[in-house]
Amino acid sequence: MTAQPLRAALLGFGTVGAAVARILVDRPDLADRVQLTHIFNRDVARKRSAWVPPSVTWTESVDDVFASKPDAVVEVIGGLEPAGTWVRRALTQGVAVVTANKMLLAAHAPELLHLAATKGTQLRFEAAVAGGVPLIHGVREGLAGDRLLRVAGILNGTSNYVLSRMAAGDEPMSAVLDDARRLGYAEADPSADIDGDDAGAKIVVLAGIAFRRHLRLADIPRQSIRSISAADFRYARQLGCTIRQIAMVGTSDGGFHAFVGPALVLRGSNFGLNMGANNVVTIAGHYGGENSFSGAGAGGPATAVAVVSDLLSLTQRTHERSEEWPAGTITPPPARPYYLRFVVRDRPGILASIAAALARQGINLDAVLQEPGYPKDALPFVITVEACQEAPLKTALHEIGRSDFNAEPPLALPMLLGD
Amino acid sequence: MTAQPLRAALLGFGTVGAAVARILVDRPDLADRVQLTHIFNRDVARKRSAWVPPSVTWTESVDDVFASKPDAVVEVIGGLEPAGTWVRRALTQGVAVVTANKMLLAAHAPELLHLAATKGTQLRFEAAVAGGVPLIHGVREGLAGDRLLRVAGILNGTSNYVLSRMAAGDEPMSAVLDDARRLGYAEADPSADIDGDDAGAKIVVLAGIAFRRHLRLADIPRQSIRSISAADFRYARQLGCTIRQIAMVGTSDGGFHAFVGPALVLRGSNFGLNMGANNVVTIAGHYGGENSFSGAGAGGPATAVAVVSDLLSLTQRTHERSEEWPAGTITPPPARPYYLRFVVRDRPGILASIAAALARQGINLDAVLQEPGYPKDALPFVITVEACQEAPLKTALHEIGRSDFNAEPPLALPMLLGD
Repeated sequence: MTAQPLRAALLGFGTVGAAVARILVDRPDLADRVQLTHIFNRDVARKRSAWVPPSVTWTESVDDVFASKPDAVVEVIGGLEPAGTWVRRALTQGVAVVTANKMLLAAHAPELLHLAATKGTQLRFEAAVAGGVPLIHGVREGLAGDRLLRVAGILNGTSNYVLSRMAAGDEPMSAVLDDARRLGYAEADPSADIDGDDAGAKIVVLAGIAFRRHLRLADIPRQSIRSISAADFRYARQLGCTIRQIAMVGTSDGGFHAFVGPALVLRGSNFGLNMGANNVVTIAGHYGGENSFSGAGAGGPATAVAVVSDLLSLTQRTHERSEEWPAGTITPPPARPYYLRFVVRDRPGILASIAAALARQGINLDAVLQEPGYPKDALPFVITVEACQEAPLKTALHEIGRSDFNAEPPLALPMLLGD
Repeated sequence: MTAQPLRAALLGFGTVGAAVARILVDRPDLADRVQLTHIFNRDVARKRSAWVPPSVTWTESVDDVFASKPDAVVEVIGGLEPAGTWVRRALTQGVAVVTANKMLLAAHAPELLHLAATKGTQLRFEAAVAGGVPLIHGVREGLAGDRLLRVAGILNGTSNYVLSRMAAGDEPMSAVLDDARRLGYAEADPSADIDGDDAGAKIVVLAGIAFRRHLRLADIPRQSIRSISAADFRYARQLGCTIRQIAMVGTSDGGFHAFVGPALVLRGSNFGLNMGANNVVTIAGHYGGENSFSGAGAGGPATAVAVVSDLLSLTQRTHERSEEWPAGTITPPPARPYYLRFVVRDRPGILASIAAALARQGINLDAVLQEPGYPKDALPFVITVEACQEAPLKTALHEIGRSDFNAEPPLALPMLLGD
């Protein structure tokens, strides 16, 4: 290539930023394509690393970065602000942006993509979903010829670690979460992970990649994994299943059904077999059937590979107009079977009462599971129901939930048995 | 996009060609990007399909196709000739080529890529490896930022069908192959599949994709799966393993080690869990660790998705210079453990003799497995050895193989336990 290398500035020198710099320094074969010119971070004196070559300017001033007129900035600061302001500033100047910031994209992708398109530049974000798994290039380009129907995945390493540990050891969630915090797999407040906001933001980005539509994070139904108990894993096992936090989005009737939360999946499926903090994503297409991608979902080096791949793609694809994501509409999910778990103060007539409430909504029972050995005043048992719509199921569960036999609110989990 | 659509001609209207036309006809949303202008095939009268719009010209003359000055030709004829002549003719005219022809690429990729580069056009081949699995886009672009170390996969559906059926049912290969032929999973002469030529050609293409080097198919060590018996699956199971035809290529000392043939893999690994005709490929990178891709390895619609994706990529990436693949050198594989299976006419002293021959080459035994219930004149037993180089192992096996206690030649399978 005879072109000048892409002059790139790094905004943020945390785990990912340092790993990006490390790859660019380690790989002299990339030097004629990408040149790292600036590293911006607070407290440069503390951050400065001896292995970064002296040709790179360290700065605490983002104005210095923009004054240098870079070809691209890499935003690996995270969070909505000031990252959003700086991404807008770059795009407005016609500077390409590579970002790993799923929250920024979930909130503002349409505006930022439009800005990139109008300024004739690019916004790239392979690193924003599933870290090192090359989903965007694989899905967007490699499956461009298909008509995609559905994307489903395990996108949150913390939740998958917690649930796969619970499945293996019959431990309560609180104990596993304590361990996860100690080991650094979970943050002090793991709400964003286990309540589904993190995976929800990623599914917003994946919907953009797969369908070129923007869904609002607030519109995506999310269910926390907090209500999953050791008993649920025992009942799931009886059904040949285990429980995973699944994030999915699919086309339906001109809109999109989406879901983030715990679901039953077959133990032998791609999802059921996925352990620890690994990510796995399955894409279903009308023509090509199912493709599955898996790999490290997080971590500095894996995420940095995605960032550097994006920088390299900028050196090759300079004449492309940035895509845009018009708004998409969330529609109800398709009919599917559900796992319903009740915890009751046992007395005669409970099953009849629940069955009657379901029957009134036209919902058919599939199986009733009740293991021995639980206390009579907090007895968990399970009913699985045949494929049904979500709305009548909610109506039935609302009615059932008002009965005074419930020791805990009823829990409904979709059974995703095709995956 | 305001540009004119890419005018594409289809060379070949077999299973894949028809599926390509079907997608282009089915998806009006692609009409402003790709326009199918010609379908070339012998015996057009028989092939002509009513669902192809009248704007498409059917022809039995390849000269007509070239006279129309297409922007791209899709070569889905297969085989070295006349496909090779026509691909060269297209590239020479500056016409981009999309091909699914792994044998042509394995034989002539360097020449064809060089021709594309000098003529300022493109040669694309996402469909040539693993059908619908978007490996090229995922690996080449999505993992461009990594330093790739190894690519390994199950790339031949026929062999995987045969071996996974044998593993499940304890059936001899001849019976499974007969069934596979009846069901259309194997050709009348399945040699190219089970002896490794098909997977070998694919590994040549994958080496090009991952490492941008061309390996000669003739230099890639291939081992047939014909010698695998039901007893091997029983012994493999004792080791927590099963047997799959694995194709792999990895970097080593400035060269590449490559292998196609049966290998022991852990039953719970991506490879061990892969059933039927599905393909799975694992890529190991220095920074990003392991990524895995799986999906339909063959079939008209899945392969056609790859072809159409390539056509779409041509509409976006018009200013890129075609890559080239300089020759790569095959080097010996790294030290690894092996599974050694002997079939002997039993008599005292055989194990001592084998152990001594291995010891003379500095090879350490790991385990000796002998199941009861086999005839004394054709007794299969297994020795696993610790990681060793291939050359001394071959020397030892050559020496052991000359002894008259062998009822069959000794069999050595690599144990790929990291996958």
